[in-house]
Amino acid sequence: MFKANENYLKLPGSYLFSTVAKKQREYSAAHPDKKIIRLSIGDVTQPLAPAIIERLHSAVDEMAVAETFKGYAPDLGYEFLRNTIVKNDYIDHGVDISADEIFVSDGAKSDSANIQEIFAPESKIAVCDPVYPVYVDSNVMAGRTGTYDKETGLWSDVIYMPCLEENGFAPEFPKEEPDIIYLCFPNNPTGATISKAQLQEWVDYANKIGAVIIYDAAYEAYISEDDVPHSIYECEGARTCAIELRSFSKNAGFTGTRLGFTVVPKDLKDANGVALHGLWARRHGTKFNGAPYIVQAAGEAVYSEEGKAQTKAQIAYYMNNAKVIYDGLKAAGYSVSGGVNAPYIWLKTPDKMTSWEFFDYLLANANVVGTPGSGFGPSGEGYFRLTAFGTYENTVEAIERIKAL
Amino acid sequence: MFKANENYLKLPGSYLFSTVAKKQREYSAAHPDKKIIRLSIGDVTQPLAPAIIERLHSAVDEMAVAETFKGYAPDLGYEFLRNTIVKNDYIDHGVDISADEIFVSDGAKSDSANIQEIFAPESKIAVCDPVYPVYVDSNVMAGRTGTYDKETGLWSDVIYMPCLEENGFAPEFPKEEPDIIYLCFPNNPTGATISKAQLQEWVDYANKIGAVIIYDAAYEAYISEDDVPHSIYECEGARTCAIELRSFSKNAGFTGTRLGFTVVPKDLKDANGVALHGLWARRHGTKFNGAPYIVQAAGEAVYSEEGKAQTKAQIAYYMNNAKVIYDGLKAAGYSVSGGVNAPYIWLKTPDKMTSWEFFDYLLANANVVGTPGSGFGPSGEGYFRLTAFGTYENTVEAIERIKAL
Repeated sequence: MFKANENYLKLPGSYLFSTVAKKQREYSAAHPDKKIIRLSIGDVTQPLAPAIIERLHSAVDEMAVAETFKGYAPDLGYEFLRNTIVKNDYIDHGVDISADEIFVSDGAKSDSANIQEIFAPESKIAVCDPVYPVYVDSNVMAGRTGTYDKETGLWSDVIYMPCLEENGFAPEFPKEEPDIIYLCFPNNPTGATISKAQLQEWVDYANKIGAVIIYDAAYEAYISEDDVPHSIYECEGARTCAIELRSFSKNAGFTGTRLGFTVVPKDLKDANGVALHGLWARRHGTKFNGAPYIVQAAGEAVYSEEGKAQTKAQIAYYMNNAKVIYDGLKAAGYSVSGGVNAPYIWLKTPDKMTSWEFFDYLLANANVVGTPGSGFGPSGEGYFRLTAFGTYENTVEAIERIKAL
Repeated sequence: MFKANENYLKLPGSYLFSTVAKKQREYSAAHPDKKIIRLSIGDVTQPLAPAIIERLHSAVDEMAVAETFKGYAPDLGYEFLRNTIVKNDYIDHGVDISADEIFVSDGAKSDSANIQEIFAPESKIAVCDPVYPVYVDSNVMAGRTGTYDKETGLWSDVIYMPCLEENGFAPEFPKEEPDIIYLCFPNNPTGATISKAQLQEWVDYANKIGAVIIYDAAYEAYISEDDVPHSIYECEGARTCAIELRSFSKNAGFTGTRLGFTVVPKDLKDANGVALHGLWARRHGTKFNGAPYIVQAAGEAVYSEEGKAQTKAQIAYYMNNAKVIYDGLKAAGYSVSGGVNAPYIWLKTPDKMTSWEFFDYLLANANVVGTPGSGFGPSGEGYFRLTAFGTYENTVEAIERIKAL
């Protein structure tokens, strides 16, 4: 008789955003006169830029005529897109990555969930705490994480690297040696970054112990400071220890259009000399059939002169919101971080409130919705996330209300 | 030190289509004056239908304006699409499936590769031979298939169900009881179908032994005969033993646009009473971020009155090609099957040639390229696949050439 994968049954419910939505709904129902402002949004709100829209239309027209119709895409992505990516994101920045090391996908979420598959089942993973839940959950499904402790919210076989105000929200080398290290900078949820020198230390550490770093750079377009690396391959030696994940979601508004890519350098080999490039290519070829042609064409338009200017303006809009939030909360006496190189602002809850207590307090007294930090992991307790993806007007009003508390 | 997933290393190279392409290139280079016709194409060639193009354009316009812009899609697909699917493909045919049992995806290839994940690692799979390679390869990657025998081309822990001329290319119940049974009808590569009564026997068998059937119905739109089921849920009891995979690739030309769906009935439970619906929902929610909005909107347009009429005409065009191939080969004395409810024609090689010998013979003497049956599994040896996806003119010419041999 067939049996389900029992690892799936170990997953605790993912209640964070549904609980946030439920509490908001209940408050609205009880107070229909109040205007609630959501600074909890993790999704973009600005429409696709004109250069992208134009290319989508022309690509759709190509699909209408037999001569230019496109069937199955190449497994690893169209060359026009891979060449454009490698030129703009790597070669132009002096970074040594080639087009055949780029794997185009339907988004960084899929890639960040699927990448664990090419590693041995017994691999030990290390993650930051708080963390984007997909890294851990995908490893739970693969049976790598041991047992879950409801009290602490921790998995027995996962190495956690707490990121707290005390360490500048930067992880420290763990005591136990991991096989796979997940790093995300600029970070979701904390908005923190690490310097190029700090990232170089991680690369050196990984090469020394023979670990691989899964580097999630989905928010690199939000970096405004010079010393913050956009790619892990800016560090020496990263080609032998790092896989990088990139997204079109937050830099070009593709959350509902779906496009991303993963970089697997050919020099990246395991303890037995097996090159991961071939394994990831095999996974793409067997379990995926390419991102839609029209979406890949739109992805190329993101890198056109117009596309670059237009998406840069969108990011500037969101980052202006981030500044409004950051400065406003600072002025109100909050302990705040993030928001300078990321669309996320991470604040310490006042008066030792728990994350959920502060959520309730803010909803009731300022009619503002944010996201409790504890939802991202035990070390997020006592923190709170606000995002810059709302409108400018709502963001200003929300911060005025919080300042007035 | 990190280690690669060794199961990936067990996979033999997938040389079929690359060898076909290489031999074709070499022949062309040696005989530049010859016009080669490819009846090996597994991809559609007709452009997207006007109703689909129109909806793609209007959906792109929606993405250009903040008021109608769409970010992250619902995990399981937009309701407008799930409702349209369930009405047209199930309810209107008297089949009991509800919209929340439909999971929209980026295509049936991803689904057919990913579905094995929700089952226990020790599950035993049964496949038809010859077979679409993804079913087996995805289970190899998951470590379920034992060792590969280069001589026989068989995996030690896979149950093979030979589909040969002798049994009408219909699999028989295997001697050993499987946990997971992969069935694909209309079949790729043989083009064979089974009757509703035959499929009912499989449903009864699966319910009796507690197996699950993964039913790949990607080619259902090509069914022309009355007694051939379009969905496994036409059979009584299928809700407790079957998952169905559907595709927009071959019925609406979405091979490069990417859309599909999987049906997981809520009644489908494992030996311990665990409902697979929740597991597949969890997989979708954790490892996937939805198909693009514009593609889901286009998928809905496939079911509009215009969309139905236009895609039906495209299928009729391909099926006319299939008839040309089938009738022509019959007239030439070949033993032929398929082609009536599927875009694939499966023929027995003459004079006891191997599949590759016939490939070489056809290329050299008729300048026609097909696909050797042995590439789909050991029981495909001595068979050959031609497809109906070319142009009418080329198809007619290719068959004239073969008849003249």
